[in-house]
Amino acid sequence: MSQQSQFLYDRVYDLIVDQIRAGSLRPGDKLPSLRRMSLQLNVSIATVMQGYVNLEREGFIRSRPQSGFFVNSNHRAAPQLPSATSPKPIVRDIKMTSIVLEMLRLSRQPNSAPMGTANPASSLLPVRALGRTAHRVVTRNPAAAIDYTEPAGHHELRRQIAYRMSANATVVDPEQIIITNGASEAMALTLKSVTSPGDTVAVESPTYFLLLQLIEDLGLKAIEVPSDPTNGLNLDAFEEIVSDFPISAMLCVVNFNNPYGSLMPDASKERLVAIANRAGVRLVEDDIYGDLHFGPYRPRPLQSFDRQGNVVLCSSFSKTLAPGYRIGWIVADRDREEMLSRKHTLSIANSSITQMTIAEFLASGGYDRHLKQFRRALKQQVDRMRYELAAVLPATTRISQPQGGFVLWVELPRGIDVTKLFHRGLEEGVNVMPGTIFSPTRKFRNCIRVNCGHPFDSVIEGGIARLGQLVDEQN
Amino acid sequence: MSQQSQFLYDRVYDLIVDQIRAGSLRPGDKLPSLRRMSLQLNVSIATVMQGYVNLEREGFIRSRPQSGFFVNSNHRAAPQLPSATSPKPIVRDIKMTSIVLEMLRLSRQPNSAPMGTANPASSLLPVRALGRTAHRVVTRNPAAAIDYTEPAGHHELRRQIAYRMSANATVVDPEQIIITNGASEAMALTLKSVTSPGDTVAVESPTYFLLLQLIEDLGLKAIEVPSDPTNGLNLDAFEEIVSDFPISAMLCVVNFNNPYGSLMPDASKERLVAIANRAGVRLVEDDIYGDLHFGPYRPRPLQSFDRQGNVVLCSSFSKTLAPGYRIGWIVADRDREEMLSRKHTLSIANSSITQMTIAEFLASGGYDRHLKQFRRALKQQVDRMRYELAAVLPATTRISQPQGGFVLWVELPRGIDVTKLFHRGLEEGVNVMPGTIFSPTRKFRNCIRVNCGHPFDSVIEGGIARLGQLVDEQN
Repeated sequence: MSQQSQFLYDRVYDLIVDQIRAGSLRPGDKLPSLRRMSLQLNVSIATVMQGYVNLEREGFIRSRPQSGFFVNSNHRAAPQLPSATSPKPIVRDIKMTSIVLEMLRLSRQPNSAPMGTANPASSLLPVRALGRTAHRVVTRNPAAAIDYTEPAGHHELRRQIAYRMSANATVVDPEQIIITNGASEAMALTLKSVTSPGDTVAVESPTYFLLLQLIEDLGLKAIEVPSDPTNGLNLDAFEEIVSDFPISAMLCVVNFNNPYGSLMPDASKERLVAIANRAGVRLVEDDIYGDLHFGPYRPRPLQSFDRQGNVVLCSSFSKTLAPGYRIGWIVADRDREEMLSRKHTLSIANSSITQMTIAEFLASGGYDRHLKQFRRALKQQVDRMRYELAAVLPATTRISQPQGGFVLWVELPRGIDVTKLFHRGLEEGVNVMPGTIFSPTRKFRNCIRVNCGHPFDSVIEGGIARLGQLVDEQN
Repeated sequence: MSQQSQFLYDRVYDLIVDQIRAGSLRPGDKLPSLRRMSLQLNVSIATVMQGYVNLEREGFIRSRPQSGFFVNSNHRAAPQLPSATSPKPIVRDIKMTSIVLEMLRLSRQPNSAPMGTANPASSLLPVRALGRTAHRVVTRNPAAAIDYTEPAGHHELRRQIAYRMSANATVVDPEQIIITNGASEAMALTLKSVTSPGDTVAVESPTYFLLLQLIEDLGLKAIEVPSDPTNGLNLDAFEEIVSDFPISAMLCVVNFNNPYGSLMPDASKERLVAIANRAGVRLVEDDIYGDLHFGPYRPRPLQSFDRQGNVVLCSSFSKTLAPGYRIGWIVADRDREEMLSRKHTLSIANSSITQMTIAEFLASGGYDRHLKQFRRALKQQVDRMRYELAAVLPATTRISQPQGGFVLWVELPRGIDVTKLFHRGLEEGVNVMPGTIFSPTRKFRNCIRVNCGHPFDSVIEGGIARLGQLVDEQN
């Protein structure tokens, strides 16, 4: 199948899904005929047919012999979005690590439906192409593959990263980049450099639990900032918090936050940077999902709005290309030397093979080719999971509608206890992350995060059905 | 050349070098005739000849036509060993990182003689064999190579490490092992777990500068323990220090300490463990040089003498196999859960390819085959460098005589300023580490550490000659 025709099938597919979502096509409605769609979109009838077949495979529609295609009747009205949050503005000690790690440990069950940890399926990653690249790298330059790179990282990798970022409105010098063991080491090095023990840092609400673990590990305190599932951080609330509390840094994921999937509009990013700069609050940006946009354009990182070196950007290839390569990076300005010292002291440098392999994969265009297909697959998976979850969960369930990334945030009816749900899920082979670990106060007791990184299959289908039953047990 | 005949050449070689060292063969002395040696060692005349040719190539002897082989006349009497140290027992704040990193940065000069950082030449490492192994690993299991391993590390790697250690008097369960980004991350995770900020840790004198950097990074204080260049740590002094000061942990390298190359006898290891256990002082052991013994047996780690889970062992393959793979490990008992939490929070896990490749290389016997040749090469290089340095440096210079590893500690005459020497060396393309960075008080102002990880060649020969001139400039 050529890329061109794939693009046309996708247009058909998207048009119908958008109408189902918007409610202009409802359960039982008949889809436009092949001929009408063909004229309307100016594509061949065979193309429309393939688009419809894809929609049927994904469970959105079904065909009735002699009658045409109909919106699947088990489809409910599109679920509402989760509520915006309004945590109390209180500075808190963090005590999360042991419970989070225990839950992650329990989640590592090979046979359960992979809806827990936020990981893409390896079937969606270019495992063979990367393997071939790794082979080329060690064959062509075996001595370099075994030797240290510079502490800041393999120069060509830093150049490739800088080049990609610069194509996206962020002019970055390779000398500003430090390669790290994933975004987690990047965040750890950054936080350690921009804070002192006892300081308070602001986090989104809900926020990614690893950030809470890091805050705990560094002896920091946290304050939650209200957020909403579409645009992310509530800037009015942020402005108030930085004027009321001595905040050292704000940790944020403005592009497809985990777990909300929210995307902060550019105007808000600009305002966020301005507020932080005025208040002398450092911004630490985790941009690991930015490349996984469902819309046509890669959203700009927060750092691209900053002229003062106040924003530190952390990112990685763990969500987009190769989790097990452990390649992340920091783009820093005024703190770069201190971070580099610390990186050097803590782990000297990253492993050379993985750095050289990714550098080569970026340079060859392999990463961009992969991303194109990968984003498409993720969008379809997220749509499908949202649809399937809505079909089995109580009608008042709210589900996020992310514009990128691959996690869904599901707000179940009040009264559902997701810790219980988590443990029952483990018994039943269903793996979802309880909302409680996304907040220092363990709220979100009726919320779960669902990973959509795996192609929909019978295991996931069964997992969703059992999840529905487990919720009903409590409802 | 068969392994068998190599072994015989080496016997000839070692016998002569040992006699030169011991002074029973002196400059100008004639070596035993080929025939006499052949009878004495019960080997062929051709074998003795090859052994003598190797000795000549390494500069120990030279042939005079028609007369036979003679101990080289530029050979001086074997240099004395450096003095044992006696630092004042004072708890000190550490402020080393910036000066160390600046020196390491300056040292990265591609064209200077590689006598600075303690690294083996890649020509001595099995770069192609490891490359082939990496290729097999990614071809056979591309999805696993791209995916995360468990946070504690690839299970087969941990099994192989445990197996090797258990063959060496240390019964280790793979579940006790945590794979880390080199020994530096291992030490960082360990120190963070066994100390609290403000605590005092004891270090050898001299000690490896990275340990001082870690102590600084964690907000700890240090106290130096007297040591000697043969047996390492002075245990009487250690016993006194732990009774006089509240010490949380002792960091030590009992097997071929960097920079002394000292080897603590087993009886002393046993006593060290007993003292520490009695005093409630944690022992943190860095065993990265243990596999590089020049004698016939692998020395036992300190941990093998401990029955109370008080010793934490840190090690890596960075000095022995593949610096750029960044594979180290911790063997811990009672602190293992806390360290694993921290490892998970800081970097999730190590890169999978490098772990899988080393696991396979260990399982195939490739590592043991490599070590055999590598140890031999290092012993010859260390001997040769010691000999060459003694030939150009002032007669009162003292040089360590390590029994393993690949660094020499050189005590120059009093009055020589090694910081000046370091900077002049950079101008002249000679790279040695100044002794000042091996102590929190920047003593050892007349000492240098010389890397012997590279085969002796004209670049190193020229470097040593220039080093001699630079010392003479100051003398």
